[in-house]
Amino acid sequence: MTDLVTFGETMLRLSPPRGERLETARELEIQAGGAESNVAIVANRLGHDAAWLSKLPDSPLGRRVVGELRSHGVDTEGVVWDPDNRQGLYYVEHGAEPRPTNAIYDRADAAVTTLETDELDLARVRDAELCYTSGITPALSETLRETTADVLAAAQDAGVKTAFDINYRGKLWSPEVAGPACRALFEHIDVLFTAQRDAETVLGRDGDAETVARGLAEDYGFETVVVTRGAEGALALHDGDVYEQGVYEAETVDAIGTGDAFVGGFLAKRLDGGDIAEALQWAAATASFKRTIEGDIAVVNPDDVAGVIDEGGRGISR
Amino acid sequence: MTDLVTFGETMLRLSPPRGERLETARELEIQAGGAESNVAIVANRLGHDAAWLSKLPDSPLGRRVVGELRSHGVDTEGVVWDPDNRQGLYYVEHGAEPRPTNAIYDRADAAVTTLETDELDLARVRDAELCYTSGITPALSETLRETTADVLAAAQDAGVKTAFDINYRGKLWSPEVAGPACRALFEHIDVLFTAQRDAETVLGRDGDAETVARGLAEDYGFETVVVTRGAEGALALHDGDVYEQGVYEAETVDAIGTGDAFVGGFLAKRLDGGDIAEALQWAAATASFKRTIEGDIAVVNPDDVAGVIDEGGRGISR
Amino acid sequence: MTDLVTFGETMLRLSPPRGERLETARELEIQAGGAESNVAIVANRLGHDAAWLSKLPDSPLGRRVVGELRSHGVDTEGVVWDPDNRQGLYYVEHGAEPRPTNAIYDRADAAVTTLETDELDLARVRDAELCYTSGITPALSETLRETTADVLAAAQDAGVKTAFDINYRGKLWSPEVAGPACRALFEHIDVLFTAQRDAETVLGRDGDAETVARGLAEDYGFETVVVTRGAEGALALHDGDVYEQGVYEAETVDAIGTGDAFVGGFLAKRLDGGDIAEALQWAAATASFKRTIEGDIAVVNPDDVAGVIDEGGRGISR
Amino acid sequence: MTDLVTFGETMLRLSPPRGERLETARELEIQAGGAESNVAIVANRLGHDAAWLSKLPDSPLGRRVVGELRSHGVDTEGVVWDPDNRQGLYYVEHGAEPRPTNAIYDRADAAVTTLETDELDLARVRDAELCYTSGITPALSETLRETTADVLAAAQDAGVKTAFDINYRGKLWSPEVAGPACRALFEHIDVLFTAQRDAETVLGRDGDAETVARGLAEDYGFETVVVTRGAEGALALHDGDVYEQGVYEAETVDAIGTGDAFVGGFLAKRLDGGDIAEALQWAAATASFKRTIEGDIAVVNPDDVAGVIDEGGRGISR
Amino acid sequence: MTDLVTFGETMLRLSPPRGERLETARELEIQAGGAESNVAIVANRLGHDAAWLSKLPDSPLGRRVVGELRSHGVDTEGVVWDPDNRQGLYYVEHGAEPRPTNAIYDRADAAVTTLETDELDLARVRDAELCYTSGITPALSETLRETTADVLAAAQDAGVKTAFDINYRGKLWSPEVAGPACRALFEHIDVLFTAQRDAETVLGRDGDAETVARGLAEDYGFETVVVTRGAEGALALHDGDVYEQGVYEAETVDAIGTGDAFVGGFLAKRLDGGDIAEALQWAAATASFKRTIEGDIAVVNPDDVAGVIDEGGRGISR
Amino acid sequence: MTDLVTFGETMLRLSPPRGERLETARELEIQAGGAESNVAIVANRLGHDAAWLSKLPDSPLGRRVVGELRSHGVDTEGVVWDPDNRQGLYYVEHGAEPRPTNAIYDRADAAVTTLETDELDLARVRDAELCYTSGITPALSETLRETTADVLAAAQDAGVKTAFDINYRGKLWSPEVAGPACRALFEHIDVLFTAQRDAETVLGRDGDAETVARGLAEDYGFETVVVTRGAEGALALHDGDVYEQGVYEAETVDAIGTGDAFVGGFLAKRLDGGDIAEALQWAAATASFKRTIEGDIAVVNPDDVAGVIDEGGRGISR
Repeated sequence: MTDLVTFGETMLRLSPPRGERLETARELEIQAGGAESNVAIVANRLGHDAAWLSKLPDSPLGRRVVGELRSHGVDTEGVVWDPDNRQGLYYVEHGAEPRPTNAIYDRADAAVTTLETDELDLARVRDAELCYTSGITPALSETLRETTADVLAAAQDAGVKTAFDINYRGKLWSPEVAGPACRALFEHIDVLFTAQRDAETVLGRDGDAETVARGLAEDYGFETVVVTRGAEGALALHDGDVYEQGVYEAETVDAIGTGDAFVGGFLAKRLDGGDIAEALQWAAATASFKRTIEGDIAVVNPDDVAGVIDEGGRGISR
Repeated sequence: MTDLVTFGETMLRLSPPRGERLETARELEIQAGGAESNVAIVANRLGHDAAWLSKLPDSPLGRRVVGELRSHGVDTEGVVWDPDNRQGLYYVEHGAEPRPTNAIYDRADAAVTTLETDELDLARVRDAELCYTSGITPALSETLRETTADVLAAAQDAGVKTAFDINYRGKLWSPEVAGPACRALFEHIDVLFTAQRDAETVLGRDGDAETVARGLAEDYGFETVVVTRGAEGALALHDGDVYEQGVYEAETVDAIGTGDAFVGGFLAKRLDGGDIAEALQWAAATASFKRTIEGDIAVVNPDDVAGVIDEGGRGISR
Repeated sequence: MTDLVTFGETMLRLSPPRGERLETARELEIQAGGAESNVAIVANRLGHDAAWLSKLPDSPLGRRVVGELRSHGVDTEGVVWDPDNRQGLYYVEHGAEPRPTNAIYDRADAAVTTLETDELDLARVRDAELCYTSGITPALSETLRETTADVLAAAQDAGVKTAFDINYRGKLWSPEVAGPACRALFEHIDVLFTAQRDAETVLGRDGDAETVARGLAEDYGFETVVVTRGAEGALALHDGDVYEQGVYEAETVDAIGTGDAFVGGFLAKRLDGGDIAEALQWAAATASFKRTIEGDIAVVNPDDVAGVIDEGGRGISR
Repeated sequence: MTDLVTFGETMLRLSPPRGERLETARELEIQAGGAESNVAIVANRLGHDAAWLSKLPDSPLGRRVVGELRSHGVDTEGVVWDPDNRQGLYYVEHGAEPRPTNAIYDRADAAVTTLETDELDLARVRDAELCYTSGITPALSETLRETTADVLAAAQDAGVKTAFDINYRGKLWSPEVAGPACRALFEHIDVLFTAQRDAETVLGRDGDAETVARGLAEDYGFETVVVTRGAEGALALHDGDVYEQGVYEAETVDAIGTGDAFVGGFLAKRLDGGDIAEALQWAAATASFKRTIEGDIAVVNPDDVAGVIDEGGRGISR
Repeated sequence: MTDLVTFGETMLRLSPPRGERLETARELEIQAGGAESNVAIVANRLGHDAAWLSKLPDSPLGRRVVGELRSHGVDTEGVVWDPDNRQGLYYVEHGAEPRPTNAIYDRADAAVTTLETDELDLARVRDAELCYTSGITPALSETLRETTADVLAAAQDAGVKTAFDINYRGKLWSPEVAGPACRALFEHIDVLFTAQRDAETVLGRDGDAETVARGLAEDYGFETVVVTRGAEGALALHDGDVYEQGVYEAETVDAIGTGDAFVGGFLAKRLDGGDIAEALQWAAATASFKRTIEGDIAVVNPDDVAGVIDEGGRGISR
Repeated sequence: MTDLVTFGETMLRLSPPRGERLETARELEIQAGGAESNVAIVANRLGHDAAWLSKLPDSPLGRRVVGELRSHGVDTEGVVWDPDNRQGLYYVEHGAEPRPTNAIYDRADAAVTTLETDELDLARVRDAELCYTSGITPALSETLRETTADVLAAAQDAGVKTAFDINYRGKLWSPEVAGPACRALFEHIDVLFTAQRDAETVLGRDGDAETVARGLAEDYGFETVVVTRGAEGALALHDGDVYEQGVYEAETVDAIGTGDAFVGGFLAKRLDGGDIAEALQWAAATASFKRTIEGDIAVVNPDDVAGVIDEGGRGISR
């Protein structure tokens, strides 16, 4: 049995070296990156069997994605291979104050945007303990919006717990579209992750994190709501109780993927049987550790996370 | 006044190091490449003012293309900037016998495919001495098929000579579509370049190179027809006379762009006032020289071409 | 069920760039490489479920090995993790005539050398269709010599076919030790691969390839004997019939791993249900394709092998 | 018509990777860099037609310089090609506290040091709106000292505004030589840029920035005097009015070229018709942005500068 | 005559690029590193003839070590070449808060661990002015424990001053073993270096640095005791007098080797005839400078150290 | 005592990657290279104590040269440090048929060009067994022409054998200057190396190699004359006897330095006490081996040379 099944797009990410701009670059690093596979990777690396469902072009580029996910132990048997459509890409130019890190998406017409429910082997969803996707998936196409609803409903019907991160991307859809689309999925969701900022932008939720969490839990019946607040840490509401977790300080090498590492750490600890407080701690530690690593992917092991929690500090181990 | 104006798509080309496969690559080299800009670059480097007309996304990627073309002296003032559409890409995995070099195109919906005639400043065409495009351009979209016809017609109407290379790409269109599309443009063309193989595949022309050239000249009234035959050299028909040119041997580092270097060398010599035999010789020498350079672009100077013609052989100059 | 299970050591391979010597290098490429995992990778890439059994240090280096094998789809669940011993290494300096390619092994005391039978989950062997190892495995330690015999016996007892490549390495053991050690394993072997040179050096078999094959089949009752003869191709003896296969020409980027690619291609085709002639053809084509790729690993797909067989020749696919 | 013409030397800059010293380096990055071309590049990138006048060796190295400047849109048609003399170089070893960044010049006998007035097409100066050079140019040779005076005088005579940055380099000349040489040019200058430190070292001007600016304006009749004070920002005096501008904070990747970016931003905004306060703001923002980019060159676009002014802060744009 | 002779192991150090983890690396930088050769290098670079005694495999890897040491001027004539044993390695993964820098040793059975006294040319020790080793050497094997004692005794008997750094490595031995082993060497030592932390862990010395120093000097009769306290600087006790030295601030690129740079700077200044206060200052300045350089080795010159002492501050020198 | 002392210039060599042109390069490899130090390196690597005399700038660049030579064991104590002048450079663009490898020298005003006899410690020459320089040294400046004569005369007076390679470089001087300059040195020379082509160009010697050798020996009294004929091998005349040696075939990675490797191999074998035939064989084998290595320097060991002689062929050693 799979512990965690995730569903979404994984792109190839192309980045010039630090200090160089895309428009003068000669070499780009290439790596796989996508919110849902990032979460699956963390869950795997922290000791769980995680699978990823998606659709990829049947090409070296699609195989490039699968190869990298498999190297971290992710089960990719559920990938649908597309003979026609393209591989989604994104470009990342690493910033330095005051130059922002810039992500340029080139994911229109990616194979995954055509993924229909009946192409998927839903048994892979029904056999899992937990099913995860993020708001990026329904943002990618009308087709995916329907498929996402079907996947989450299938999980729910089979008694599989579901988790969802709003993960709002202004370059993909507007709040006016995202809001109703996300709300339509909420009936199928047990665990909701949202940045406080997204809760306001997309769902129109004002107030402090606790107010937001309580309001959402009340309105939609979530079992757990986790609200992240950037450098101010995270808050979780579960069974009416509130849990707070600060941020572990980090020297940031690459901030992209931090949110996914947080979700992955949280879900992995929950799958371990950890309580909400422990899950938040693993979430925060995994997120902090991720920041020190180039690329979307949190190349992390259980000892690494435990080390952050135990010591926080750095040094040389010899 | 511009000596040569070319019109077409320039992509960004992404390649892993030699001996590596795309599906396991970690780094890709990035370079601009496109048949028509390759020709413009050669013309510029060999001493002429050459311009390139196209449409690019108004993004770091589009500016990446323009920056590289400008570095070789190409006038890019006529580029139309597109706020919406994407930059065309292609991936090249360098082969080694028996593994073929593999080009994977990712150029659907590139900005240039939406380029309509009235977006272009046709004065840039009318002010040139010579106008060039290749069969790749009309292959890219219906819109471009019309725009290509309009550009060539505008040149013709203004008394600007026109040159066209069939440049058939089976990954872009079928012979059934390409044949009529190319033939529809022939009325506007003065100088036709074609691989003998393309003449057969696309235009259904059998027989030896001379037969092909004479047939085409007769049927469409071309001033010059140049038929290339790979390792067997090229043949030109001009004013009824036949000229033949062998190939200069080369140690091939990168074969892509060889055909464009050939065309560029030919047109540059013609713009110099060279006769057909001289133009063929410059074409062959430039093509040979190109093969020794990584990337689509023939980074060549007049002395380099003259050196190939004079000596052919290599050695160390010290 | 696993189609193929292989058993042996995988090292990390460290190589300086071409044209550089180890003793002046500043950067080394690192890749996983080992005869048995190389075979498992090929089988996987050509469409079969292949697993690899071994023992690795529980360290970033051991995980480095597993990550790379998994990226090619190999099942590494059967790896035994060792808290104490080291990761085997080897250094490769790429040669150029007259400078030989030089492999320096640093594999003494590698974790795998301590692997005892009862650490292994032999159910993974018994559940496979085919079990493979090479003469390198028993060469590594006394312990491994026993474990190898146990693994092959377990396979045999469970009705799993077994395959073995002599794969003689003079830097690991002498013919005097290797000969008896290999012969002691032959009773458990169905399919024997041997270089003609190894048959002479290790087993003292003179004569042409057919003589060698017939002699070995007669003396040890092998179902199939495959004798490779470098550039002169391979010969197989099966059910008394002889099959011959020439070599597909290749521009060699990296010769290391060619033999493993041959075995992998052969076994994959047999697992497909191919006959001996087909298996030899796939073996030769996969081996030829491997030569064009940097590293031990044949990054190959079924279409690639079919392409070599169909066309042999190279070119540019666009 | 050209908006801005600049005049000076551009070197090739050679740098080892960060954290490495020149004396143990194996690889050097190569980039073009020179105060006046740096300014021309910024002006071009921010929307103006800028040209650069100089003399370069007619060699791959000279063409390397021109290619890079052209990639940023700079008009290099006015470059004089020298068959004999060498290309100026400089080496930069990036420092880290307490190790200083070290620039080693190797520019003696560079082609530009032999540039005489009558080699130049002064029409290119007379046709511009603004003419810029820095104190580095007259520091390079006696010949250039005269040519610089001639160029500035030609501009002045043609009614072209002139701008000059003291840009004192102690490795090129002493204050005793630089002082009179600069003062001799002041009669031709409309806009003077000076670091407060240079004003003291070279011109013997004590007191605060305003005192320095007022003194210089009074003594030499400058239309505008801009005094920069490192981390304390800049002060401009124009028509008797004083304008002050703070520094935008930056995470410094490469400090070299910051002053040129400042000048380029200032002049570009003035050419846009901006007032002194706006020009100072663009100067400061462009300078800050430059610091985040490896190399001498401010690879900047108008939106980037506007972004610094609007937000200052960094983040991830997605 | 040699000024300084050092004795110990030098490994090859393998590191992935910053921000990458060992378990996903594709390229490793390779450099020589070892406490005693690091000290010899600093002494050489700061103007003294320093030699290094050790044993290395007679292989490209052993020659790789010698080549790098010689490039910094170290006399390696006293190296014993071993036909059989291996080259010690260590892997360094550079950390970033909260991820620690991780050193993984792979030095078991290195050639040096078999080095016996009678293989060494002790005349090289007896002819020196000063002899240095660290606690790492006796930690590597029983054999080396004896050889170390013999080398130090030989120096002492010949009237050569001896210096020793405890340099405790918990991955090599326990305090229970290290304590007696170090104490057994103390009778041969004139100058002792110890981190305050090591004095407590290994020697059980509590109290502040001065207390530790006075206790050790009293108990073992050291001429000089230097106690380092990380960011709090160092304290030396010499002839009953106490000297203190703060730390020069540094932007740390690579902390490994800082302690060796400290020792090297101290000993070099003492060999120059400097007093204890001067030696401490050079030690601190060299250590600070080392931190800005990638790798174990302090690529430093006398002017660099003087620059740190004179100015401390950074900037751009041009 | 030094076995071999060589005298000449060593430059830093800057090369773009293969397949790239200098005028578009972004990265250059940097390595030390110079005819006389190349010879000293080979002699050292093949077992002799070799020293190199020259003058270098007292800068990181000069130290870069010395560090690399020392890494190969060359004694650089005799280098004169120059506070003022520059480091000589040369650029190498690797060619591929029909594009020639191009060397661009930037060595004018290098420190070594100012080297006068009284700056040198001639005892280092007088204490050697053999003294070597090439025709490049006197080509560099008038001063060096005199110093070269003085060095050779000092050797001769001290009974030190002398060797000289014409090594004609058309980019440094004309045959009209080189001829008399070389002839003026011949009275001090015992062993002359010359390419047959140089003998004709510089010395006006026609005829086959033997005729050339006999003529030169007769006219100038050389003990040994070695005439190299490219792919046709070499001929030596010694004591009236003629010895011939063919070329060992090689896959050429970098041809530069092949001639120096030849001389180095020859002199090393002679210093070993080998006869002329043996010396020629080592010369040819070392030259062949050098061709397989990137850079000027023959990174070669005695076993490598013996391997070429014994086997010639390549393969994989494992």
